[in-house]
Amino acid sequence: MGFWKSWFSGSEAAAATKTTPVEEHTTESVDGSSQSGTSITFSSDRDLDLYELEELCDAVGWARRPLRKVKKAIQHSFLVVSMWEVRGTQRRLIGFARATSDHAFNATIWDVVVHPSFQGKGLGKALMQYTIKKLRAEDISNITLFADPHVLDFYRGMGFIADPEGIKGMFWYPN
Amino acid sequence: MGFWKSWFSGSEAAAATKTTPVEEHTTESVDGSSQSGTSITFSSDRDLDLYELEELCDAVGWARRPLRKVKKAIQHSFLVVSMWEVRGTQRRLIGFARATSDHAFNATIWDVVVHPSFQGKGLGKALMQYTIKKLRAEDISNITLFADPHVLDFYRGMGFIADPEGIKGMFWYPN
Repeated sequence: MGFWKSWFSGSEAAAATKTTPVEEHTTESVDGSSQSGTSITFSSDRDLDLYELEELCDAVGWARRPLRKVKKAIQHSFLVVSMWEVRGTQRRLIGFARATSDHAFNATIWDVVVHPSFQGKGLGKALMQYTIKKLRAEDISNITLFADPHVLDFYRGMGFIADPEGIKGMFWYPN
Repeated sequence: MGFWKSWFSGSEAAAATKTTPVEEHTTESVDGSSQSGTSITFSSDRDLDLYELEELCDAVGWARRPLRKVKKAIQHSFLVVSMWEVRGTQRRLIGFARATSDHAFNATIWDVVVHPSFQGKGLGKALMQYTIKKLRAEDISNITLFADPHVLDFYRGMGFIADPEGIKGMFWYPN
């Protein structure tokens, strides 16, 4: 079992007991057991460097969006999750996700991204599990998202179901 | 062209010029040209009688939800739309819809309901057009929803597309 796997198991164990409100700034860190001296941390602090976030989104080839609107979207998201690689005193943003919500029943997850250099290590799954854990801790029962075709299996592996009982995701386009 | 149709054309005409912020309480009324003396109005005021809303949801057979949570969901929705039948000094809640949003890019419409006695008259379409107009006025470009199988064609007729480019709506269920 490699570093990420062992780290990931720790995260799952933590998920069962953590009930910190989403509004609080929480950082969860798990020290790596490898010799590399790095660790991965998660945070729900929404005070992010927008340029660093833009750099992350650039790395996966997303179209750029006005930072003014990105700032507003982050302010008005119910939950903002960031994932960091920590090396000594330095940290680097390597993942991100956020969710809109009515704070009562429904949440919709948007903008899930993991830096290409950190993909294929189970970190996308860890990011999503942290996000789901936070939403569940807020008593949100209906967690939804819209998935591109190439990530359907990834989300299926996380417990997401496409079109349950024939319910379809729809997007409005001007006629 | 019947009453609802002629009323509806008026609503469409208004849609092009109205840019009232969502946060404001706005009521739009169009007098009926029929002899019945009734009119239909729309409002984005979120100060609703929750028992009246529950009665409306009961009428379409929805499972009851704790009013405390319904209140919280309404407070934290980006947009709340109600539709009323007005007869003289009395008004009756006959339709409802709400949307969550990040106030910048995305909105998701939930809880769309029209009282059974008022279905089949074009009022569901009018309710949705009012809702879309309000979201567009707030510069929301990505309007989404999750549609049950029996209302897919209704939403298609409104300009909604299911699974565009293979994007799938997904719901999380505990493994």
